[in-house]
Amino acid sequence: MGYRLALVCSAIVLLSISGLSHAGVTSSYTRVAEPSEEMPLETFPPPAGLNAPEQVLSNLSILNQLLLKKFKKKKNQLLLLLLIDLRKLFLLSQVHITQGDHNGRGMIISWVTPINDDGSNFVKYWIADSDESTKESAEASTSSYTYYDYTSGFLHHATIKGLEYDTKYFYELGTGRSSRRFSFTTPPKAGPDVPYTFGVIGDLGQTYASNQTLYHYMSNPKGQAVLFVGDLSYADDHPNHDQRKWDSYGRFVEPSAAYQPWIWAAGNHEIDFAQSIGETQAFKPYKNRYHVPYRASKSTSPLWYSIKRASAYIIVLSSYSAFDKYTPQNSWLESELKKVNREETPWLIVLVHSPWYNSNGYHYMEGESMRVTFEPWFVENKVDIVFAGHVHAYERSERVSNIKYNITDGLSSPVKNPSAPIYITIGDGGNIEGIANEYTYPQPSYSAYREASFGHALLEIKNRTHALYTWHRNQDDEPVIADSLWVKNRHFLPEEEETLSGDSSA
Amino acid sequence: MGYRLALVCSAIVLLSISGLSHAGVTSSYTRVAEPSEEMPLETFPPPAGLNAPEQVLSNLSILNQLLLKKFKKKKNQLLLLLLIDLRKLFLLSQVHITQGDHNGRGMIISWVTPINDDGSNFVKYWIADSDESTKESAEASTSSYTYYDYTSGFLHHATIKGLEYDTKYFYELGTGRSSRRFSFTTPPKAGPDVPYTFGVIGDLGQTYASNQTLYHYMSNPKGQAVLFVGDLSYADDHPNHDQRKWDSYGRFVEPSAAYQPWIWAAGNHEIDFAQSIGETQAFKPYKNRYHVPYRASKSTSPLWYSIKRASAYIIVLSSYSAFDKYTPQNSWLESELKKVNREETPWLIVLVHSPWYNSNGYHYMEGESMRVTFEPWFVENKVDIVFAGHVHAYERSERVSNIKYNITDGLSSPVKNPSAPIYITIGDGGNIEGIANEYTYPQPSYSAYREASFGHALLEIKNRTHALYTWHRNQDDEPVIADSLWVKNRHFLPEEEETLSGDSSA
Repeated sequence: MGYRLALVCSAIVLLSISGLSHAGVTSSYTRVAEPSEEMPLETFPPPAGLNAPEQVLSNLSILNQLLLKKFKKKKNQLLLLLLIDLRKLFLLSQVHITQGDHNGRGMIISWVTPINDDGSNFVKYWIADSDESTKESAEASTSSYTYYDYTSGFLHHATIKGLEYDTKYFYELGTGRSSRRFSFTTPPKAGPDVPYTFGVIGDLGQTYASNQTLYHYMSNPKGQAVLFVGDLSYADDHPNHDQRKWDSYGRFVEPSAAYQPWIWAAGNHEIDFAQSIGETQAFKPYKNRYHVPYRASKSTSPLWYSIKRASAYIIVLSSYSAFDKYTPQNSWLESELKKVNREETPWLIVLVHSPWYNSNGYHYMEGESMRVTFEPWFVENKVDIVFAGHVHAYERSERVSNIKYNITDGLSSPVKNPSAPIYITIGDGGNIEGIANEYTYPQPSYSAYREASFGHALLEIKNRTHALYTWHRNQDDEPVIADSLWVKNRHFLPEEEETLSGDSSA
Repeated sequence: MGYRLALVCSAIVLLSISGLSHAGVTSSYTRVAEPSEEMPLETFPPPAGLNAPEQVLSNLSILNQLLLKKFKKKKNQLLLLLLIDLRKLFLLSQVHITQGDHNGRGMIISWVTPINDDGSNFVKYWIADSDESTKESAEASTSSYTYYDYTSGFLHHATIKGLEYDTKYFYELGTGRSSRRFSFTTPPKAGPDVPYTFGVIGDLGQTYASNQTLYHYMSNPKGQAVLFVGDLSYADDHPNHDQRKWDSYGRFVEPSAAYQPWIWAAGNHEIDFAQSIGETQAFKPYKNRYHVPYRASKSTSPLWYSIKRASAYIIVLSSYSAFDKYTPQNSWLESELKKVNREETPWLIVLVHSPWYNSNGYHYMEGESMRVTFEPWFVENKVDIVFAGHVHAYERSERVSNIKYNITDGLSSPVKNPSAPIYITIGDGGNIEGIANEYTYPQPSYSAYREASFGHALLEIKNRTHALYTWHRNQDDEPVIADSLWVKNRHFLPEEEETLSGDSSA
């Protein structure tokens, strides 16, 4: 799909931005700006089942009644067992995994069952090439939540710890005919030159465009874990924040998220604050459904935390929690940044939903409040890349900072700064709200490349000095140009980034 | 104490700032910069009791044991009753009141008892000149909280509604010998020309300087209610956030706060986030001890809310809760500002802890995050005055705004704007951390007057167009100059403020 062309154009892009006095690139390609069409609930039935979740529950209810009424007398034990087994066919969906500790030897396995039978809340796991006798088992914590007129299924989260590094594991959920088997591979032990490839996805939703993004990402065998920058299901775009959309989203991403960890950050669509229907506990569905290992990094909230993975140190922040000085998130980040050892994990990456450098008219300057609060720390600590979402388009910044301003000196324009991160907005997953295609003009000097298309990115860390970053537009009516860059590590090679050469491409 | 001199100097100040090109005034008087000395816990014993709270509890424990052990046999009913009564002497302290509804016909009465006997949780109240038969009674909600090794007394909060406007009430807490009687006066019905005088206090703490501030305020009979801009007890400056300091603070302010409503805003010292001792629920002591009528303004958190009082509409915000777009506080403020009817309540006043315009080196630019988020709304809605605390000094701004900036245009300097609020930093209550006396130089053009002294302010609303604002420095070694201004209402008289004339002074 025009990879050679992409390389040439990338080179042109990169040559043109050697100085900030040159304008960045606004791609001439713009996706048609209409809301992406939502896939119907029925698109993602339970894996072995027949219907969408509320129908599952309805059928389950009939089954349960059958079990209770007809077989109290135990006149047909065989049929009883069959029906119990049949009932289990409805179990076990929305399987997803995420890192379960700080170092990469843990995994949180999450899944949903509409009933909570014996065994529903256990996961068995074993090294892929070992024999059956080595199977171990972990118990989940199980909960359920209500939201307006909806009651969730049973949400199970089991944390497995002490896994071997760099090892493929199988894991199995459920029992008998309802059991489902998945696998994952643990990362190598953290080290400065450990290569590792992250996918980067944001604002995914569950439209046909979302589907393109997800399967486009999955079709590339390189990605080993996903950095997700917030806005998952977009349930809140539906009447009364239709919570069934959280269920269908869980099933939608399962083909990837059950096999490799997705590192979650929360976006505004996770807030689910709906005072008019009496739902005023912010982040309720998200916190119930997506567990993260926040305690392992001494965080007191799942909305901000960190993990180490291979050669990367990932810090996740929350745009929609308090972050001013004296607040828990602020205190946490201050001490967290001191813990990062770039000699062990050279790549310091931050995930946050609301972008700090965005030249799209959509959500323009919404990230200013966090930028003025945290930007000096990011520059001081030489963060390599900040990935954000929120804006439904793609944009990559120059390495700029805007930290000199003191209210009276007028120094409020972003300037080139080799210690500054590259800011990448990748809220282009393809959600129901459609593309964000109203740019500010002229293109600000901090903006290196911007395009109103859906897609995802890959960050291929090669060693302590280099990482290949590529942006992959979804297939569309015609071949399109992706953005790409050899990123140089701010700790070990704080030089200006150069254009991607054709031969060294991955 | 040199009031004539103050007037002359104020006139000089005001003449000198007719254009923003002129520098503001930095008072030559600076209070000695040493931590204010904390008053010992014993300074504020329970009103009829003998000891500080933990000792109260200890004595109570002895009494309780006496009651349980010695008198089970009922051999001396009279002594039993005496001891029960004696026990009640320890009850009932930390009485404080705040507005209990949106319009001014409600009052929340709060008090603390170390035991929870029959009647501990009731308040009787009646119109001052009515006979005893008209007494009514309201029941409190009662709770207690733990914090590290501390268990609070029983915290009672009773909301009285449907009071007559502009009427003096008595209220009585406790029974028998332990009963204590207080009074308050309800505000007049809201209306555009209803005169009303607010005291303004911030960052009070409980030092000898705090004591000066409080009694200096109380010595002036004008103040009818206090606008408090956050940082109450400074318990968190003591080992393990010594919660007894919350008790002693409650007793310290009782002589004022039991008789007129204090309108509370939360500051950073209310967060009480202390992960090292396992206390990670932000604002726990504050939320337990200081109830506010947030539900009456459709808020979902006691940290942001509004009230109407006489001719003023008071909006309270939280610097340390999330306030970015999509968050509950942001949504609330957006709809709240639309509800303000300036024809009914011309004076729109905001309380927030962290100042947006501060030229003191202490906490410089900490308020930027909220400023970039909310300032356009404040200008659009012509807020009259924003009171903030946090910086332990006094500062008054010009009417400036800084909302033109769009990242690339360089328009980042505050400019004069007749629709902008006056920003007043009044975190000069006299707390334990001492004075903030490191100014930025040159004095920025947005800063009209600044002085590193302790004090409080009065805002005397006269009618729909004029309010007399005066800053009252605490008495000190020598006579000192106060700041003062005739404030013109932004809705009815959006003219530039003039100097205070000698004859029209209050």
